[in-house]
Amino acid sequence: MRVLGIDPGLRNLGWGVIEVEGSRIAHVANGVCHSEGEDLAMRLLSLHRQLTEVVAQYAPDTAAVEQTFVNKDAVGTLKLGQARGIALLVPAQAGVSVGEYAPNKVKKTVVGVGHAAKQQVDHMVKMQLPGVVIAGPDAADALAIAICHAHYIRAPGAMLKEKRVRA
Amino acid sequence: MRVLGIDPGLRNLGWGVIEVEGSRIAHVANGVCHSEGEDLAMRLLSLHRQLTEVVAQYAPDTAAVEQTFVNKDAVGTLKLGQARGIALLVPAQAGVSVGEYAPNKVKKTVVGVGHAAKQQVDHMVKMQLPGVVIAGPDAADALAIAICHAHYIRAPGAMLKEKRVRA
Repeated sequence: MRVLGIDPGLRNLGWGVIEVEGSRIAHVANGVCHSEGEDLAMRLLSLHRQLTEVVAQYAPDTAAVEQTFVNKDAVGTLKLGQARGIALLVPAQAGVSVGEYAPNKVKKTVVGVGHAAKQQVDHMVKMQLPGVVIAGPDAADALAIAICHAHYIRAPGAMLKEKRVRA
Repeated sequence: MRVLGIDPGLRNLGWGVIEVEGSRIAHVANGVCHSEGEDLAMRLLSLHRQLTEVVAQYAPDTAAVEQTFVNKDAVGTLKLGQARGIALLVPAQAGVSVGEYAPNKVKKTVVGVGHAAKQQVDHMVKMQLPGVVIAGPDAADALAIAICHAHYIRAPGAMLKEKRVRA
């Protein structure tokens, strides 16, 4: 099963695709969409086009987006919301289901603790996808979201079976 | 020139289309897109589809969206941002320019004062578009945004000339 993780942002939208087979994950691709355009509508259109290309090229079976809030700044939260709208829309347009995870859940799943530092998340992503060149912090976050989603979409029964087979 | 006004909202997205000729405006259509779907991505997809149909059916030359903030509540602001992302994207996808106006600017243009009550805005919209059946408060707000945009896209020189002709 192919999983797309998206870290939404109006300037830089990170994305990462992994292949999941049972408990094994493998890197497929990652990158960052940079919005271009003079006004907000053109920038959103630019993100929509780039992310649509990513979905068309890598044909994920499922996708996930981080549930982020910028509590301190309403303008920033609105901007993020606009980019997030595009991040949720694009997979849905391709008929791909979209999961949402709180940042703490992503950290807890990838690092083991909900209050892990950003560097720890990046480190664990690199550990789980050895040798992979990551396009930047936004792409690393997107891969972390994909890894988190991969964890939760596995059937609990299947996971137990795999553990037993290994033991 | 045909102008589309959009009042974005995740549950109810109001829209209104007017025809502008010099200083005259005429109503074309108005309505509200209600989002449907189990999760956020499906609801955004539903809004995108409905608004895309509106743009295809009424072929506006230009569009405008209100610049709204929900300062008191980050969750509400993020939701609104997501709907706003769709509202800005859809006209841009059809090659239609999208203007943005602060709520106070819309009120000042339509009513004459920046701190007008919502009922006053609705009343002035009905006054300027007599006999029009308005689909609800969100559609009335969308028509107010369209009227505001119509005001600002007119060349200042042309407006002065029209006033002189009238006098």
